[in-house]
Amino acid sequence: MTDNESLSSWDRIIIGIDPGTNVMGYGILGVKSKKPSMIAMGVIQLSKFESHYLRLRRIFERVTGLVDQYLPDEMAIEAPFFGKNVQSMLKLGRAQGVAMAAALSRDVPITEYEPRKIKMAITGNGAASKEQVQEMLRRILNIDASQLLPQLDATDALGAALCHFYESSRPQVEKGCRSWKEFIARNPGRVK
Amino acid sequence: MTDNESLSSWDRIIIGIDPGTNVMGYGILGVKSKKPSMIAMGVIQLSKFESHYLRLRRIFERVTGLVDQYLPDEMAIEAPFFGKNVQSMLKLGRAQGVAMAAALSRDVPITEYEPRKIKMAITGNGAASKEQVQEMLRRILNIDASQLLPQLDATDALGAALCHFYESSRPQVEKGCRSWKEFIARNPGRVK
Repeated sequence: MTDNESLSSWDRIIIGIDPGTNVMGYGILGVKSKKPSMIAMGVIQLSKFESHYLRLRRIFERVTGLVDQYLPDEMAIEAPFFGKNVQSMLKLGRAQGVAMAAALSRDVPITEYEPRKIKMAITGNGAASKEQVQEMLRRILNIDASQLLPQLDATDALGAALCHFYESSRPQVEKGCRSWKEFIARNPGRVK
Repeated sequence: MTDNESLSSWDRIIIGIDPGTNVMGYGILGVKSKKPSMIAMGVIQLSKFESHYLRLRRIFERVTGLVDQYLPDEMAIEAPFFGKNVQSMLKLGRAQGVAMAAALSRDVPITEYEPRKIKMAITGNGAASKEQVQEMLRRILNIDASQLLPQLDATDALGAALCHFYESSRPQVEKGCRSWKEFIARNPGRVK
């Protein structure tokens, strides 16, 4: 699945990233004939590195590696805008920054989504649990149960990629809709 | 000054970075026979870019360019640990992250210093103004007044590099000193 020839069969590839300072999740989404599928997903374990710099370095190397391996057209990143305190936000910002730098260094455009927005796009509920996000992704993308990872950061990242696919392929007509009811009526295929 | 041949005449080169989301300062410090000198300093203007991503991209490109141009052995980064709010800390963390990624991608080790620590190392006063830091740097490094920039972010960055030089070349005997008085008595050349 990962050689260039098989990758070129996709119309579009989106890499989703869920950055954290202990675990970073990633998901690779392929789109063919407007239909999204999972190409790969996984986690980058960071807790084994004691030094903050070694963690940042690992994120940069692994995300650069994923970008070079899957040649994504876009990156979608899960980005909380609020945190417990300024210290944790600074660390999170650094983790996001090095992941973004990996995309920027390869001219891959980045879009960020709040966790609530991703949950809403995938499950219809902005307060859904990570397990609910995983279960909906499994159904939408027909992921075999054996492919699911115990780490929910991987499905969170895949959720960011799928959210970006929905957002960016949203029909223009929606802008003229005055209500969700009208949107659903106009776009029956978009609501599951 | 910037070709590889002239750079190889330095025993050690330290790049100092003062990351911000509007202006990023940098300073290149060269060390020869244990004596520090300024090689270059400047600022990266970011306020002209409206998009946050374009700013991050610019930081990554320019810092990577500086690392490739001056081939520093180490990076010293001015890193405040406290900020006004979580939002500004997230943005600052991202700016720091992409600057760090530029160093990490070239195997340049990073050390961070709090602004107070840098001011203390350069002026002897942790609450010194940016102007006082600039004035002390001008004297210590014999910088011609015509070389000084109106943007104090440049001298702040150079201050981070000089602080790192002092910290890393601090004599081991200091660990045995029980007071500043004793340290000064043992190291007369270190106090100006």
